[in-house]
This record gives sequence, C-alpha cells and structure tokens, in this order.
Amino acid sequence: MSAPGAGSATGVGAGGAPVRHVPPALRPALDDERLARAAWSRLAEPGDAAAAALVAEVGAALALEAVVTGRGPQRWRTRLEETDPAADLARARAVGGRLVVPGDEEWPEGLHDLDRPAGTERPQGAPLALWVRGPAHLARAVHRAAAVVGSRAASAYGEHVTSEIAGGLAERGVGVVSGGAHGVDAAAHRAALAVGGTTVAVLAGGVDRPYPAANSALLARVAREGALVSEVPCGSAPTRWRFLERNRLIAALTAGTVVVEAAWRSGALSTADRAERLLRPVGAVPGPVTSAASAGCHRLLRERGAVCVTCAAEAAELLAPLGAAAPVPAPAVEVRPFDGLDPHELRVAESLPRRGAAGTERLAGDTGLEVAVVHAVLGRLELAGTAVREGTGWRLGSAALRPPGSRRPAPRG
Amino acid sequence: MSAPGAGSATGVGAGGAPVRHVPPALRPALDDERLARAAWSRLAEPGDAAAAALVAEVGAALALEAVVTGRGPQRWRTRLEETDPAADLARARAVGGRLVVPGDEEWPEGLHDLDRPAGTERPQGAPLALWVRGPAHLARAVHRAAAVVGSRAASAYGEHVTSEIAGGLAERGVGVVSGGAHGVDAAAHRAALAVGGTTVAVLAGGVDRPYPAANSALLARVAREGALVSEVPCGSAPTRWRFLERNRLIAALTAGTVVVEAAWRSGALSTADRAERLLRPVGAVPGPVTSAASAGCHRLLRERGAVCVTCAAEAAELLAPLGAAAPVPAPAVEVRPFDGLDPHELRVAESLPRRGAAGTERLAGDTGLEVAVVHAVLGRLELAGTAVREGTGWRLGSAALRPPGSRRPAPRG
Repeated sequence: MSAPGAGSATGVGAGGAPVRHVPPALRPALDDERLARAAWSRLAEPGDAAAAALVAEVGAALALEAVVTGRGPQRWRTRLEETDPAADLARARAVGGRLVVPGDEEWPEGLHDLDRPAGTERPQGAPLALWVRGPAHLARAVHRAAAVVGSRAASAYGEHVTSEIAGGLAERGVGVVSGGAHGVDAAAHRAALAVGGTTVAVLAGGVDRPYPAANSALLARVAREGALVSEVPCGSAPTRWRFLERNRLIAALTAGTVVVEAAWRSGALSTADRAERLLRPVGAVPGPVTSAASAGCHRLLRERGAVCVTCAAEAAELLAPLGAAAPVPAPAVEVRPFDGLDPHELRVAESLPRRGAAGTERLAGDTGLEVAVVHAVLGRLELAGTAVREGTGWRLGSAALRPPGSRRPAPRG
Repeated sequence: MSAPGAGSATGVGAGGAPVRHVPPALRPALDDERLARAAWSRLAEPGDAAAAALVAEVGAALALEAVVTGRGPQRWRTRLEETDPAADLARARAVGGRLVVPGDEEWPEGLHDLDRPAGTERPQGAPLALWVRGPAHLARAVHRAAAVVGSRAASAYGEHVTSEIAGGLAERGVGVVSGGAHGVDAAAHRAALAVGGTTVAVLAGGVDRPYPAANSALLARVAREGALVSEVPCGSAPTRWRFLERNRLIAALTAGTVVVEAAWRSGALSTADRAERLLRPVGAVPGPVTSAASAGCHRLLRERGAVCVTCAAEAAELLAPLGAAAPVPAPAVEVRPFDGLDPHELRVAESLPRRGAAGTERLAGDTGLEVAVVHAVLGRLELAGTAVREGTGWRLGSAALRPPGSRRPAPRG
C-alpha cells in the first residue's frame, strides 16, 4: 500500500470501506467523461487491457471515481497525485494539440479491434484517449491507411525503397502511418509529405516531445501538415514499454502493415505481430539475403506468411478490400519470338529454316509430329506470318524474325 | 500420311490393316525392352504423356511393334527411319555414357510421379529412358537432392548466393541438380564440385553435346565427377521444346527446387511450376526489389506460396521430411539489456536510476504499478543483479549495465 499523500487522507465510508478524499485536480473529471479519459491516459500505462475493460464497462468517470475513492481496484492509484487532466489539456492546447476520445467523429474505428480480439487472442487494450497534434482529421487520415515501418538503421537501399513505396501509396491517396523514428519511419513520412500526401506519426512519448530529437524538424512538419498522435499526455517520456505498446496503435490504426527493412530483431517485427493479431494484412519487402537489415523481413516471409511486397502497387493491393485495388501491372517484358505458340506450333516453328525451305516430311521428322499435324500447324503459322511458303517447302516468316523490341533469346525453357 | 520410305513398304496383314516391313535397325528392339526404350527415346519427344502411357501399359517392345507394323497409332512413325537404338547405345558408350531404364537400380524413384499426377493434374509424362554420362549412381545422386536453378543472366549477387547455397547443401551431403546453363546453374554445379559434393546436370540435348559450349569445361568436369543426364539420345539438339520439358525432369528428380535468381519470365519459373505440380516444395531466394534479376523469385514468393530461402540451412530444411532437418540457427544477435524481462520487470528496470537511488513509491509512480507489485518485481530483479539496494532505495545493477557484447540500444519497441 502506498502511504497516503496530501489530499488523499483516508476516512471510512458507508460500507466500511476506506473512502479517500478526492485530489482537487481530479474532481472535475468525476462527472466529465472527456476529462476522465484524459486522466486515465495518465493513470494507466499504454496497453493496460484491464483499465480499458473497466472504462469500457462503466465509463471513464465512474471508473475514475472508483479508483480515487478507494472503492475500486487499487492498482491505478500510484499516479493519482500527479494527475491533472485540465492541466494536461492546457499543455496540449499550448502546442496546438487536442484530445480525441471514443465517440468523437475523429476517433478511428480500427482501434476498437484492440478490445475485440480475434479468435483466442486476448484483448490488446484500446487506448483510453488519444492526444493529437496537427491539422489532419485523424479518422479520415488513417482510413485505409498503410503502416510503413522498419529499421532505424536502414540501409541506403531501405530508405530508397521506403521512399518509392510510401511516396507511391501517398500518390494513390493512401495515408502513410509510421513511428517517426530514424531510418525507414522518417523516409516514409518524408516521402508522403513530398508528394503532398497525408502522414501520421504515432509517438511513444507526448506530442509535445518530438523523439528522436534529430527528427524534430521532420516531426514539426508532420505536426503542421498531418498529425502527431500519442496515447500518453504531454510531457510523458518515450519509455521502452511505451514504444512496444505504441506499435499496437500503428497496427490498429491502419488497414495493413508493410515492413520495409528490419533486422532479425526489430521493433518493426513487433508492429507486424500486432497487426497479425488484429487480422490486418502484413507485407514484407525483400532485400539481399546478404544484408542483415533485411533479415527480419525475410523472417516474416518465411515464418509468418507475410505477403511479399516489392512496389507501391503491391502495397496498395495488400490494403485494399478484395477486388478493390487496381491490378498490379506486370513489369514490361521483352516480347520474344514464338511467344504464345502452343506446343505443336512451337515445335514446328523452331524447326523452320530461316533460309531455304523444308518440306513437310522433313518437318515431321524434325518435330516428331505426324505429317497431317504438321500441315495443320503450318496453316496456322502461315496466317500469323510465322511460316512462309518457299517453293514446295516452308521457311520461317518475318513475323518470327522481327518481334517488336526484342532480341532473339538463347533457347531455354 | 507420310509417304512410305525405304524399308517401310506397305503390305496387307491378316486383319486387313496395313502391315509394314520393319526397318532392320529396329528389329532387335521388338523383343528387347531395353533397346525398345532406347528407340522410344528417339521416336517420342520429351514430355509425350501418350507415349509414356502406351509404353507403361504394354511395354516398350510391344508398343514399338504396334508402331512399326502400322497396327498401332501412326503419330510416332515420322522418325522410324532414322531410329537405330543399337547405334545410339554405341554413340553413348563412345563418350562413356549408358542407358538407364525403369527397373534398373539406378532409375530414380521420383520420376514415377510424372506418370502419377497429384489431384486433378494431367500426367507430365515420365521419360521413356535416360541417357547418363558420369560416375555417379543416378538414383543415389538424386536421392533427397536439391534442384538449384535460376537465371542465365545472373547478377554477381545471384552467383554469390548460389555458391553459398549450393556449396552449403553439398557440404551437408545433399546432391545439387541443375541445368548446366550459364549463371545460376553453372554457379550451382561449380560450388558443389568445389566442396567435393555430388552434382548432376540435366541437359536438353544429348549427353555428348554439352550446351552451352562456353560451359563445356564445367560440363566435362560434371561428366567426370557427377553425371550428365538427358532423355534424348546422343546427337539430339537442345531445342526450345526440350528445354521446357527438361525442366520437368529437374523437378521430378529432386526433393525440392530452389530458385536463386529469376527474371519475371524465366525458365527457372517453369521448373518451379513443374515442381509445384509434383507437390515438391519450392523455395525462392529474395533479392533487392530494385533488381530485375530477382523479380521472378519475388513473384514465386508473392503469387505461388514459395518458401523464402536465404541460406543453405533453410534450403536443406525445405527438402527434408518434417522434423528431419537440423533446426535452422537464428543469426547471432546482440544481447540487449533487459532481454527476457516480463512487462512489469521491464517497466521497473527502466525506471531504476543508474546513479543515486529511487524509493518504491517513486518507482510505483513512474511505472504506474502498485507499490506491492514494485516490491515483488524488485525482489526478482535483485536476484538477477538488475536491481541493487542503495540506502533505502534502489538503483540499476551492473548486470543490466554490462550485457555481454552489446551496446545499449536506443529505446524502440
């Protein structure tokens, strides 16, 4: 038991249970859901599924009252004295931030899945409130958005591919959500901003504390053009625990997660794991097997059934509901002679001489086909310009010799 | 109908059907299964499932008799005149080659799957005979072997990774089967030879005709130390069709196929397709998404459910029956402070000061945990050396400060 501090002297209530005095800063929150949510965002650590369940059950204000009066669970009392939701709201307002709570138009629908787990999963705990800084309408910004995450220690390859994918997604109108870190995260935010797209950085600390400091200019730009989001109030430090739980928010806010580069052990893998537990699609970008920076992506492909994603179109397809995405175009490939021929046509066509002529019997011997079959095939090849009559025989036609934009490949199946 | 040539003048047999004279070179084959198989390997093109079915049904000699007498199907008559199985055997012997047929101890078991398709697949047509050149015992050489295939136009990366994987497989006693082509194929054969492993090159033309010519020294070494294999007799040209059908042999001979590098359109994808149709596992090695040489591998991962393979151990695991492979070791990773702590321990440990001391109430406030929980956690952390008593409080212990061989990472989940 914590020793009682100022303002929480213990009395005895009607039921014989100890009743404590309510700290003055918390009094207004006891009948204001919004203030109570703000208070809870300081009392409970991110990912506290028990707090989320209690608040969902009785409401934030009643749950808070149970804690402060001592009639409810004791576990959330340790920060009661330092909790001042009105002051936290004022600090947020001072940096242009706001509080977003369930029921607000801006509250992203996908967060509810953290409380409604799939299958046998335990709830991951929806955030009790979100602190948001920036002009983006949060629910719209993350609607069908992509999480693009990866190593802080990204390689030049990783940063390049991140830019291609995040930029391409943003150009398609897909929001880009990431964690504001060095490396892949920063490249993703930058690429989205560069094409005028929407980007959201989900932080482990308060939205007044851009972390890491080296990214403060970038994060300031995200705050001006997109949104910074956190579930802890201003002034909160980005602890290791909060980084871990921040990853569940990135996963839950988005329609799917693409990991661009990740070492064998990487926080990005935890985001992928959270997404998987939410039944959100997970994509992984491959890289050289000789690069440790891609080992985590290969692990996702190999062990977790992640989808192989190599470009923005494939990333967009990952996120889209079935059938809704534009089909991913096949890469432009060389047109080759004999493309599209059936097996008999192929065997006859490649037996035709380029110069001179071959009779049908010789062609039958060369191809191992009956003469009657050779005749029928030659008729079809003649129509296509692949075979040309030459005296009493046949030679290869110019259609086979000059395929558009191609060189003649060496034979190989 | 083919015009009758010398030695196949038409008469009328007992049943009124035309009966032709048997070409002299074929007469010995009519009551010698082995010679008859050799003859069939010239009469029918690779992958002729009808020929395979007929021969499987009535035997090679009877099937041959039906063709030469004109009482059977006409479609295999076009090469009758040029078929001389004794001469083909002599040509093979002249280059140190031999004929292997079903029933021989050397006949690889896996080839039967080409006649026994899985599910709704049509038979792919087992070879009617194999021409083999080299000291390897074919059935043993390909037992649990790996097909390692890929682009002729391999990149330096592709050749390097091929060497690592094929060499590593050979060191584990796994045979390496490939197609003898430039690029990945050549690198695979070379790597297996370099470690004294077993390697088999399956050719589209005769085993007396190393193709491509630039690989003739390599293929000669394979012929001296492993085996060259073909289903067409000596002197046969490597046609496009035969390359395609050669791929089904590579797939059927091996326990699984690993594609190292392959363009979007590549013969290696056809080998993977053949393997898949035989229910053999298919692995694909990823590469940079910016490299066209890896596009086919990524396509296999994305569209065909190929297994991501990044090293020889993973390739070996692909081929091995469930549970038989040595577990793939995780890469050596940095040991980090706070590794292995549970969530409460992590929250307490990272709240401990490095200098000075913090009391349990302060730790409770910092972590959001009850004081009783903090006490219990500190007890466990003290045992591990992660927490140390300092006066009435606690500080971080040296066990957390000096993890073996690590640097302290920046916080990130």
